[in-house]
Amino acid sequence: MAHEIKFGILGCANIARCLVRSMKLLPEVKIYAIASRTLAKAQSFAAENELPEETKVYGSYDELVEDEEVDALYIPLPTAFHVEWVLKAAAKKKHVLLEKPPARTVEELKVMVEALDKNGLQYMDGTMWMHHPRTRKMEAVLHDSSRLGRILEVHATFNYHAEVAYNSIGGLTADVRGNPDLDGLGALGDIGWYCARGILWAYDYEMPASVTAHPGASYNEKGVIVSCGATLVWPDGRTATFTTSFNTSHVMKLLVVGETGSLESDDFTLPASNVKSSFKVVSNTSWKDKLAGWHRTEDFQEVTLEIPQEAHMIREFARLVANIRNGTGAVEPKWSEISVKTQMVLNAVKQSIENGLKTINL
Amino acid sequence: MAHEIKFGILGCANIARCLVRSMKLLPEVKIYAIASRTLAKAQSFAAENELPEETKVYGSYDELVEDEEVDALYIPLPTAFHVEWVLKAAAKKKHVLLEKPPARTVEELKVMVEALDKNGLQYMDGTMWMHHPRTRKMEAVLHDSSRLGRILEVHATFNYHAEVAYNSIGGLTADVRGNPDLDGLGALGDIGWYCARGILWAYDYEMPASVTAHPGASYNEKGVIVSCGATLVWPDGRTATFTTSFNTSHVMKLLVVGETGSLESDDFTLPASNVKSSFKVVSNTSWKDKLAGWHRTEDFQEVTLEIPQEAHMIREFARLVANIRNGTGAVEPKWSEISVKTQMVLNAVKQSIENGLKTINL
Repeated sequence: MAHEIKFGILGCANIARCLVRSMKLLPEVKIYAIASRTLAKAQSFAAENELPEETKVYGSYDELVEDEEVDALYIPLPTAFHVEWVLKAAAKKKHVLLEKPPARTVEELKVMVEALDKNGLQYMDGTMWMHHPRTRKMEAVLHDSSRLGRILEVHATFNYHAEVAYNSIGGLTADVRGNPDLDGLGALGDIGWYCARGILWAYDYEMPASVTAHPGASYNEKGVIVSCGATLVWPDGRTATFTTSFNTSHVMKLLVVGETGSLESDDFTLPASNVKSSFKVVSNTSWKDKLAGWHRTEDFQEVTLEIPQEAHMIREFARLVANIRNGTGAVEPKWSEISVKTQMVLNAVKQSIENGLKTINL
Repeated sequence: MAHEIKFGILGCANIARCLVRSMKLLPEVKIYAIASRTLAKAQSFAAENELPEETKVYGSYDELVEDEEVDALYIPLPTAFHVEWVLKAAAKKKHVLLEKPPARTVEELKVMVEALDKNGLQYMDGTMWMHHPRTRKMEAVLHDSSRLGRILEVHATFNYHAEVAYNSIGGLTADVRGNPDLDGLGALGDIGWYCARGILWAYDYEMPASVTAHPGASYNEKGVIVSCGATLVWPDGRTATFTTSFNTSHVMKLLVVGETGSLESDDFTLPASNVKSSFKVVSNTSWKDKLAGWHRTEDFQEVTLEIPQEAHMIREFARLVANIRNGTGAVEPKWSEISVKTQMVLNAVKQSIENGLKTINL
């Protein structure tokens, strides 16, 4: 296929298996090469994930970045390595799809985004749910003022039990997410990321005036955040809260509350089913006479998927890259802008926790 | 009916209409008398609510409290008047069912509870959902360690739009809840009360070590809290958050999150339907291979009601009073204990807000 985008995959993280499966579904995308720190590891990933026979297999990241055939890199490396490899990618004119959390600090992320931007290269972070067709349907509700009215509160929670999830490799501490040298933000970066993004998304990416962490944040023995929460306040008094934890069963809830209605999803970041997903809008609420209950109109919307949400993400990224390559489009700045905003919120939460729950003004 | 409990109703608040309807459903209860500040107002309430012809109608609260036939008082007066009338009730040996919030301060509530207790009289606050059969079913799930596992987080939200709800009387400011001279706790006392109770209930009434208000609390022009939130932390690090607001459409959510499952209700304080109510338990969560969604077991439980939740409350209160009267039972201390605990949490939230979000140790 002449117009396909050739992807190089930098690293063999678990999340890469998810994206590889989806790349195989997309005719406009080619898994051109995979690299790991050793050739054996890359070969084993290629075999396990049934990569096409022609896929190149590299035993070092440098070899892949040097390959002039590669259009774009998908980088699922641990966060601590992102700056190094994104800067190398930018120097070699590769567009970058970067796993989240993209950076340990806002400054790191800005360095990466600016390097790509200066070279006319597209950046996108790996926040898959942004690209799910359900998200478009939820946006239609949010932007229709006759549904929720003015949005005044957003509440997000994303939890899973990391000790159980990473049990086979020795628990959370053995995983990237539990190691401050590899990922400085722990649960905040891994799953709090989605809460912060969900809140910003619901408020159409308007930044809060301040971020204040909640008491009760917890850490693992290596000093990585395992659970935490925060309240965001906008200049006009609108608010949002989120909580995130590596200690409980899966919870992925987003609740957007407006003057005249509310919208909720029970699995906003990753639909429980890859085929069908849903959300609920509650509106027209009022008390019944003598408080014998309350009236509400429930609008339950379902969305059926033909390809997984990450395939929609890769498709959109590839479309932008193709348009830049053939001169019909320019870099879409939205993706780096909302990535920086999300990172700003997360780092403010961390700063607030580290400063005795001080309110951090943004 | 020889063994019926004779109720006197002190005041004609809207909420009294709700309880009167339910008292009429219960053979063990008699609406013996109704009092208001004027006879005309009491007569009009009796007519509008089709009270039995024999119901006595008093034009002063004192006359009703003096009536020796009255076994128990239901007191839906504004919060600021509770101490005065509960102490008079105690002196006249009347059991007391008191509308919430019971007091403006913890000290006020303790004075009332002690006066009743000293006289061998039952106290109960008007938190109806505690008595709904659904609450018993949810407790069975909470107390079955094979369902949620250890409970680590609770999140509660209760909102409604007070300007809309009280529009016919001139909005929130014209209502008791918007007037600091009548009810010092505003939204925190009116609906935050249920959030605090829901959290304590989920943690089996174990008290948190600290309460910290969230930033962004708002007030009406008379200085009453219109919206606020808080995080509670237990000595071993378990947490809870709640938010409450008079500014949005109805939201009544309780989410109890454990290590192995979670329980949620969308209308925990007042089922949307008086006939059928439900809750959901999610358990056995795990990631699907290649993050193609996640596994979960959903247990959706429905409860059908024959009488409203407040009728269950009155029935339980009347049962306790009857047993005390006939000597087969003693005062049940649980109801005053959990009322004081709830009040302690609310007042700590208020204190935290007033002290620049200081963490209040309990």
